[in-house]
Amino acid sequence: MVDYRAPRRDIDFVLKDLLVSEQHYGALQGCEPVNNALMDAIIDEGAKFAESVVSPIAAEGDALGCQFSDGKVTTPPGYKEAFRLWGDGGWQSLAVPAEDGGQGLPSSLGTVIGEMVGAPSWAFSMYTGLALAPVTCLLNGGTEAQKQRYLPKILSGEWAGTMCLTEAHCGSDVGLLRTKARKNDDGTYTLTGSKIFISGGEQDLSDNIIHAILARVEGAPEGTKGISLFIAPKYWVEEDGSMGEFNNIHCGAIEKKMGLKASATCVMNYDGARAVLLGEENRGLEIMFNLMNTARLGTALQGLAMGEIAYQGALKYSRERLQMRSLTGAKNPDGPADPIMVHPDVRRMLLTQKALVEGQRALIYWLSQQVDLTKHGSEAQREDANTLLELLTPVAKGFCTETAQEVTYLGMQVFGGHGYISEHGMERIARDNRISSVYEGTTGIQALDLIGRKVLGSGGNVLRHFTKRVHKFCQSHQDNPAMAEFVEPLAKLNGEWGELTMAVGEKAMTNAEEVGAASVDYLMYSGYVALAYMWARMAEVAQQRIDAGIDDPIYRAKIKTARFYFQRLLPRTASHKAAALAGADALMDISDEEFACQN
Amino acid sequence: MVDYRAPRRDIDFVLKDLLVSEQHYGALQGCEPVNNALMDAIIDEGAKFAESVVSPIAAEGDALGCQFSDGKVTTPPGYKEAFRLWGDGGWQSLAVPAEDGGQGLPSSLGTVIGEMVGAPSWAFSMYTGLALAPVTCLLNGGTEAQKQRYLPKILSGEWAGTMCLTEAHCGSDVGLLRTKARKNDDGTYTLTGSKIFISGGEQDLSDNIIHAILARVEGAPEGTKGISLFIAPKYWVEEDGSMGEFNNIHCGAIEKKMGLKASATCVMNYDGARAVLLGEENRGLEIMFNLMNTARLGTALQGLAMGEIAYQGALKYSRERLQMRSLTGAKNPDGPADPIMVHPDVRRMLLTQKALVEGQRALIYWLSQQVDLTKHGSEAQREDANTLLELLTPVAKGFCTETAQEVTYLGMQVFGGHGYISEHGMERIARDNRISSVYEGTTGIQALDLIGRKVLGSGGNVLRHFTKRVHKFCQSHQDNPAMAEFVEPLAKLNGEWGELTMAVGEKAMTNAEEVGAASVDYLMYSGYVALAYMWARMAEVAQQRIDAGIDDPIYRAKIKTARFYFQRLLPRTASHKAAALAGADALMDISDEEFACQN
Repeated sequence: MVDYRAPRRDIDFVLKDLLVSEQHYGALQGCEPVNNALMDAIIDEGAKFAESVVSPIAAEGDALGCQFSDGKVTTPPGYKEAFRLWGDGGWQSLAVPAEDGGQGLPSSLGTVIGEMVGAPSWAFSMYTGLALAPVTCLLNGGTEAQKQRYLPKILSGEWAGTMCLTEAHCGSDVGLLRTKARKNDDGTYTLTGSKIFISGGEQDLSDNIIHAILARVEGAPEGTKGISLFIAPKYWVEEDGSMGEFNNIHCGAIEKKMGLKASATCVMNYDGARAVLLGEENRGLEIMFNLMNTARLGTALQGLAMGEIAYQGALKYSRERLQMRSLTGAKNPDGPADPIMVHPDVRRMLLTQKALVEGQRALIYWLSQQVDLTKHGSEAQREDANTLLELLTPVAKGFCTETAQEVTYLGMQVFGGHGYISEHGMERIARDNRISSVYEGTTGIQALDLIGRKVLGSGGNVLRHFTKRVHKFCQSHQDNPAMAEFVEPLAKLNGEWGELTMAVGEKAMTNAEEVGAASVDYLMYSGYVALAYMWARMAEVAQQRIDAGIDDPIYRAKIKTARFYFQRLLPRTASHKAAALAGADALMDISDEEFACQN
Repeated sequence: MVDYRAPRRDIDFVLKDLLVSEQHYGALQGCEPVNNALMDAIIDEGAKFAESVVSPIAAEGDALGCQFSDGKVTTPPGYKEAFRLWGDGGWQSLAVPAEDGGQGLPSSLGTVIGEMVGAPSWAFSMYTGLALAPVTCLLNGGTEAQKQRYLPKILSGEWAGTMCLTEAHCGSDVGLLRTKARKNDDGTYTLTGSKIFISGGEQDLSDNIIHAILARVEGAPEGTKGISLFIAPKYWVEEDGSMGEFNNIHCGAIEKKMGLKASATCVMNYDGARAVLLGEENRGLEIMFNLMNTARLGTALQGLAMGEIAYQGALKYSRERLQMRSLTGAKNPDGPADPIMVHPDVRRMLLTQKALVEGQRALIYWLSQQVDLTKHGSEAQREDANTLLELLTPVAKGFCTETAQEVTYLGMQVFGGHGYISEHGMERIARDNRISSVYEGTTGIQALDLIGRKVLGSGGNVLRHFTKRVHKFCQSHQDNPAMAEFVEPLAKLNGEWGELTMAVGEKAMTNAEEVGAASVDYLMYSGYVALAYMWARMAEVAQQRIDAGIDDPIYRAKIKTARFYFQRLLPRTASHKAAALAGADALMDISDEEFACQN
């Protein structure tokens, strides 16, 4: 089992050295001021929670999983207690505005806590994260009365929540959904239908479960234009917030799945459940929009969190496992063999993990602070942050979760055969992480959003907004020889990114399939360039510290890891570029009959 | 659950169109002649076995796994019956020489059967495959008396077998092994020690289990020079082949692991087990050598088999699942949405699977026929085949199993969230396949063998032997415009392969770490070029058939899939080349302290 230790030093580097967060937090309007001391105190407490409450329940949670019987779900030992401690500790309300009963801290602090608490058991995070789904919906689309009715007990951790979207026949294609809502005389609605893949749809952690449900009001238009958003609790909640009767929301089954076994994935049946409309009829997706973006960054965070613990496990093992001698002479001459960390290919695997994980952390934390700015910044900051997030949210979601597959894969690979054995915990991490590139929009969906809606949809403006920033960064270092190894390739790829976009865009004008044909390789290309920008920025700040005479291994490590990233990982852009430019013909020319003629 | 259907049409293409196997088999010396009719009959029977006996037991085998109690292993329902039918059908003796009691068929036919039977449940194949481990050891190093003592009942399927190599502290580094052998007065030996990861070390399928065990005779040299190979049965076998008493070989536990759950992975304890020496003391690894090469190609075959069934599942799902409309107009206007196969990115995933799986099949079958030639060819053929296998065995093992991870990953990805759910079977395939890039030598070990021992160790001769063949192939098509799209990039990369090798070799002369630093990227580069050669050959033969007026979708599919491979996958060589050339410095410069400073 991997004993998780929060990467406090690296988190500090990103927050303080790279992002100068005290300054960032100090300038936000309308949320609690956060100085370094408060930031440290909150993160230390979060680290303690992750290490002492969540880490110990993770392995058994996977081994036993959730049990289902007679409509009831039993979570594995310790999950109920951990959920209670989470609520008692005030974590659930951390980033909710003070006027809505929360602690009014910036949401980017929640991201840091989310990484640490999610790393040992993402299954646990599914319950706490989904409890925030109805919160976000209420904050975006609820009336004051609705907020007061539901929020307090969710924020205290007494109640939990869900987001109910997927149905058996509709996942990516939400416009197909069939769950029906009929309006009652008292203004409430009655829901009938069935949803699948509802995380925490039923559990034994909380007294009540507040479901946020997408459904179609009778007579509403077909497709995405006729979807409304409802709140329907497991037990009815009166207008004064008190709990009433069971609300005919039944869990029909839980899924047996590859991982996240301690998180109950439920089939939910609404047999005439009473519900309250949020906002207006047929405008449900607009209210959900914010939640979807939050969830995408939250899933990128899963990739980071799972990658971090996979790296920790692999690093520890590679320092302890003795196998074969270094080719340049014994490094552990008194032992029977050298630790496998001496072997260059093991180091390649570890550095691949390190470069991806730390690059992801820098990117996601930076984007989380952009989210802060969309809420608490000046008008100019809001606009800038929104444009950055338009581009980089699908990049972060798609790229971080795809590369996290590689990081968790390598975690097992460093362990050799022992990685395949459950007791070491490495295979659980890979299984738990496998869903990250699927849910909240598959990589394919992210890629279409990125290149189709965002980049080409804005005539390239959304991309240029970012590449200009990268260009300025590169220019500011053009006479700095210490940065040349980073800035030169970054500047080249940054320019090439625009050319690649133009080339795909031109083809797309004559054939709509060209967008989809290029999409995922385009996203991966974009991700590698975005991470190169983050690594160059990290190298810059590390070099500044070294130049200032500060002797700390992390600064040397940052320069060396940046170098590894630029030399060994960034060249992958070449393959993705070639594939993205290959065009749609090779994909579309093959007929159905030709596809399936192997049998 | 994926209902496996043997890819008979594609197997036929590879065996008959590409490899002209009737001619190959007809020219072999010292084994049974195989014409097309016999080949068809055997493969049809194997397909039937795979589809009707193995496929139905796979899903439950994964769900229930093996049970362990009081030293006994219970396999899941159906495995015992399937193993009996396997023996009764004569499959276990298929490729064993007639003079040793087998059917004397070429071993490449066993490869075809192995793919089909392994695809639905590789766990089942672990039992039948490992039963051949002592067979191979006996054929390579056993006396006539030893062969007659043990072989008949293994070949009939009454007994099974294992290969016992790994110990808790020694996996890749076999020289560290500690299991002890003491010579007895009667010429037998007594074994004491413990092994781990012994597939089929204990089971309830067979009356006896013949263990092939590596151990160190008392007083033998340390390291790999003091390792001997023994046969020690679970129940002692008398010289006349009759079964005697329990032989103090205990199964201490079975591992809980990510996949292959129906295959018992055992801890084996030898508490004074009697054993018979094969060959001479301290020469055990030489006898094992052949087995290790066979096992490497057999593991490449696992990648192919798992990839094939992942592709079948994804293809079927993508034709049935309706989600969103094609961007170029509805393709299924009467339905609520189009099948997802119309979307270019889904086609990219399917074609990636198809191109890798079919390319792997061509490569592995071709190499299997080279194995035939090493045994039954003329002297010139043997030499040629051995040199090809030296180069391409580690390439096939490393490349096919690494790319199979991608193929099984994409299998889940095409299913979206449903891929994560156990009932669809796609996540089992990914779990079962995950070990393929680890056991029988990790990808890192294959890569060191390839570039260090084989390519640089021969002064490049082993590589040139193959690149000359590729060069000739390309030259033979230099005036063929229909082949230009394949031959031109292949010729270019084939030349570049030599330059890449020279560059790494030169660096390695001053720094031994350069070999390991380049190794895995070098292997992957080599694999993509080798597969490009196979795809170009497949395109060539398909074009010949089309030119001859034969109208069969498979020939059109081959050309189009080759095109996809060259346009979208072969460019990955660029990234691998850049990484392989990046050198060791970025890997070796980072200190232990710097590596681990994130906490």
